[in-house]
Amino acid sequence: MLAWRMSENVLVSDRAIDFILYEVLHLDALCELPAFSEHSRETFDLFLQSARRLARQALFPAYRAMDTEPPRFVDGRVLVHPIMKALYPQLVALGLVNATRPTAVGGQQLPMGIFTVAEVYLGAANLSALGYVGLTAGAAHLLETFGSEWLKQELMPRLYSGEWTGTMALTEPQAGSSLADVQTAATPRSDGSYDLRGSKIFISAGDHDLTANIVHLALGRIDGAPPGSKGISLFAVPQRRPTATGLEPNDVTITGMIHKIGWRGLPSVALSFGDHGDCRGWLVGEPHKGLSYMFQMMNEARILVGASGVGTASVAYHQSLDYARDRPQGRSLERRPRADGAQIPIIEHADVRRMLLRQKAIVEGGLLLVTATARYADISQHASDEERRKASLLLDLLTPIAKTFPAERGFESNALALQIHGGYGYSSEYLPEAWLRDQKLNTIHEGTTGIQGLDLLGRKVVAGGGAALALFGEEVRATITRAHSVNLNPTWCKALSDAIEDLTTLTAELAQAGLAGDANRMLLHSADYLDLFSIVTVSWLWLEAAAVAESKHQADPSDGFYAAMLLTAQYWLATELPRVPQLIALCRSADDSYAQMQPSWF
Amino acid sequence: MLAWRMSENVLVSDRAIDFILYEVLHLDALCELPAFSEHSRETFDLFLQSARRLARQALFPAYRAMDTEPPRFVDGRVLVHPIMKALYPQLVALGLVNATRPTAVGGQQLPMGIFTVAEVYLGAANLSALGYVGLTAGAAHLLETFGSEWLKQELMPRLYSGEWTGTMALTEPQAGSSLADVQTAATPRSDGSYDLRGSKIFISAGDHDLTANIVHLALGRIDGAPPGSKGISLFAVPQRRPTATGLEPNDVTITGMIHKIGWRGLPSVALSFGDHGDCRGWLVGEPHKGLSYMFQMMNEARILVGASGVGTASVAYHQSLDYARDRPQGRSLERRPRADGAQIPIIEHADVRRMLLRQKAIVEGGLLLVTATARYADISQHASDEERRKASLLLDLLTPIAKTFPAERGFESNALALQIHGGYGYSSEYLPEAWLRDQKLNTIHEGTTGIQGLDLLGRKVVAGGGAALALFGEEVRATITRAHSVNLNPTWCKALSDAIEDLTTLTAELAQAGLAGDANRMLLHSADYLDLFSIVTVSWLWLEAAAVAESKHQADPSDGFYAAMLLTAQYWLATELPRVPQLIALCRSADDSYAQMQPSWF
Repeated sequence: MLAWRMSENVLVSDRAIDFILYEVLHLDALCELPAFSEHSRETFDLFLQSARRLARQALFPAYRAMDTEPPRFVDGRVLVHPIMKALYPQLVALGLVNATRPTAVGGQQLPMGIFTVAEVYLGAANLSALGYVGLTAGAAHLLETFGSEWLKQELMPRLYSGEWTGTMALTEPQAGSSLADVQTAATPRSDGSYDLRGSKIFISAGDHDLTANIVHLALGRIDGAPPGSKGISLFAVPQRRPTATGLEPNDVTITGMIHKIGWRGLPSVALSFGDHGDCRGWLVGEPHKGLSYMFQMMNEARILVGASGVGTASVAYHQSLDYARDRPQGRSLERRPRADGAQIPIIEHADVRRMLLRQKAIVEGGLLLVTATARYADISQHASDEERRKASLLLDLLTPIAKTFPAERGFESNALALQIHGGYGYSSEYLPEAWLRDQKLNTIHEGTTGIQGLDLLGRKVVAGGGAALALFGEEVRATITRAHSVNLNPTWCKALSDAIEDLTTLTAELAQAGLAGDANRMLLHSADYLDLFSIVTVSWLWLEAAAVAESKHQADPSDGFYAAMLLTAQYWLATELPRVPQLIALCRSADDSYAQMQPSWF
Repeated sequence: MLAWRMSENVLVSDRAIDFILYEVLHLDALCELPAFSEHSRETFDLFLQSARRLARQALFPAYRAMDTEPPRFVDGRVLVHPIMKALYPQLVALGLVNATRPTAVGGQQLPMGIFTVAEVYLGAANLSALGYVGLTAGAAHLLETFGSEWLKQELMPRLYSGEWTGTMALTEPQAGSSLADVQTAATPRSDGSYDLRGSKIFISAGDHDLTANIVHLALGRIDGAPPGSKGISLFAVPQRRPTATGLEPNDVTITGMIHKIGWRGLPSVALSFGDHGDCRGWLVGEPHKGLSYMFQMMNEARILVGASGVGTASVAYHQSLDYARDRPQGRSLERRPRADGAQIPIIEHADVRRMLLRQKAIVEGGLLLVTATARYADISQHASDEERRKASLLLDLLTPIAKTFPAERGFESNALALQIHGGYGYSSEYLPEAWLRDQKLNTIHEGTTGIQGLDLLGRKVVAGGGAALALFGEEVRATITRAHSVNLNPTWCKALSDAIEDLTTLTAELAQAGLAGDANRMLLHSADYLDLFSIVTVSWLWLEAAAVAESKHQADPSDGFYAAMLLTAQYWLATELPRVPQLIALCRSADDSYAQMQPSWF
């Protein structure tokens, strides 16, 4: 009855991407670095164009089927949707497993900034499909950086080629986010490999029938290892192990499949290693350093979680925009009824436009954020020493923001897309509810929002005596100067200038409490601090975008694109930046309600 | 593998209810009114005790099954879950269809305030099950108030007895929220009834196999009626019509069932009247007054939507509290590891307690709000003339808040409950995701949040020259006086005092713009205004609750209950009240970003 109409969903605005990449953040300037000297805006655009095409023509049309019919768990194996079998080779062919890796390992040596934008398109279209290759890329990259020659020869190339897939097997049922409590045991064997024994849970793509083998990058403890995080090692544990005569079963048992509420095309499984005492793993890097290796990968993954959040908010934004332009309902407040007495499209109601503009501000603010963060990743790896140092500090600082803002604000944005659809939005005949479900995972995986807040305040802003925060302040002030030079609204500049000063002072106060030994006092408002820092960061990026848009708008006032960018910046800066003083006061006040609250009193 | 553990979910805290009903809002004082003279705290508690028991022992245990296996649409009929057939008579036996109605129609003449609290328990347990009787109560009440003698004799008693059920058949596919665009046609017949022809959508409980008949209270237009809202009449349209020889089919066709994402035990259908020209409806009240009749019912329904929102947030809060007390993960920030080196329950992490306390503040703030609003409904109907007038103004004013706050903040609260469960919360092995889905409907049905904002600012606060707002200010100031008298934190009193002054001034300015003919300017920030007004209202109620709790706490400092109430009030007042100046500035600034934004520019 309510037939779902497959809309011409653009997923992400191409023009907004061009604006962000080349007019605001100047990603093409990366080509001046030796690592990207073979590239140019043309090669970037070729890659993006291929990603867009795959997203729009293959991934998005498959989304609904994959959401509706999740993988099945049959006789201990996971069977994926047949449509995924058609998509997988196309994702591999686009080079997604090694797009940012050097040509030496078959990669395209593309900047993370460009790759991240491609991921936004692909994630907007179909997060689950992207998941298989994203996890494989992470696993292969770990082997490339830390693996033995044998791992680099036997396993890595099969991952980069997409012949096999990879996973990140970190979480265990009893430990959850507390990786220091990982218990999987590894006993050395005489041949240099290890016997693995343990249970893992929430392992995405931990089983499927897309490829002949799966390599788990698993955390475990070598017998006799020190307790806690300093005794954790990283192992490559293939589902089937390579032998002289081919692949053999490696005693990895899939013990169950979790019924996730979103990303339903990507299975999440519980598995165990060594139920029959015959599971081999190969140590990656040195013993007891597994957590530090994994974190290197995880930091990259956190930016990609941000990209997933932006993509999921973006596709829903464009769907609700389409709906709001089409759906007639009600009449204008202006009491100037249309001559024909007909209803007006709901986009003509101010509050619907508010919900759309709020989504646009979150989606494009998120795009600016993840792209800027990925650009720092590129500079931190490939520029001159001093530039690398600075970019590395900014990358570390912004990673928890880039991971969290799109997830938390994206969830709000996705709820607005549903709301615009009214009663239809509350039905699974339409897609906004599916994207809302997808989005929620981004506040949980790769470190929950709570963990990101602790990382930002407890580690990142105080690292190197506050060096990163000082550099961040310089970036913000440079933007304010540019904004002044094109005569942007001085109220915005003043508010952002005050915000960065007050944030810096507040941070020093909180760090002082920490140095004085009161970690509880320092970190009590870490969630509010993360919210505060996110608002300042995205306001900075919107001010930068507005400064660029203002110049272009002055040059051609008839171009609605720049007018819209200016209004979106205005919406964000007028609505969110004034929350800064209140959040600063809250973090400073040390409102101690939940510190005081006893568990038994709830 | 992940077996769901049925927890001892209390659904709602009984002690919080006693506190709110009898220590803060003094619902027992209603027994001094003649209408409630047969009642006492004892009879109230007997009713609540029965509701609690039914909620905990029958409704909640059935929730999961009803969510997992929604009604089926087979051969044009809707078949509900068998477990619902066992629940329905128990809901009727509790007297839920007519609990607040006079004994003359078989009711218990209970105050709305008490009934609303019962609904919070029942809604926390199983919203869908409650839906069948709630809709029947609304339909029967409309017939009682406006129906002809024939309707009161033939249909009303069968609804009140639960022999049949009722619906509200307002929405049409082409009109949505715009009820002025209802097109269902009604042609007078010689026997005084009407021939109905038209389509309805999103009709909850519009078909099922629980009872022998269903009576739709439907909006339509009598042939020749004036256009717009002034030409809409209300009809009773039974699925099967009573004749001298019994019930006969009445040409009501169920054309489809909507796949709702929540409230999945309650079918929502599309239906049509008179596909074969043989559908009879009976006019309720006078022609063309249907919308005003329906709104009388809808205002009551809006408070009950608020109760649904509170209940849904409450059950999830208690589940996450239970989980946080049980789940060991990580170690204390204090670097004082437990002697046994074991992990600590996550409730010992400050940020988890923040998420719990925020939920508690929203849930119990919502309870205060819906109970206080329902209490005004009781006074507005049953007190002396002057008291009635005042209560009626306050009831009208607070209804959009009571409808919206639990829905919008409850959604946030439900997301926090999911977040506390981490990866498990993202699976349908656990229930928080189901309650998150349930909650979302409350921002849509019975008038979307956008519509409530327009109602509050465009109608309620300006009615009678601002009389309601002036009365509201008196109530707030009386609370501030009480708070001072027990030496509550003067910062809170000052902040609330400033808030009500500034809110009043802002409202006058916006009303002025409206009077000057600029409705767009007046209503541009209606969503922000609703948010602002909600914060002030709930802060007022938390201050009142804190004043009571402070007295009790002084009397017995060892009782953690009052200490917890004070800390919850502190959390709310320290976190939310400081947002008032920023929201006032926003409403006043007339940030015109979305007013300026052209539909084609997005």
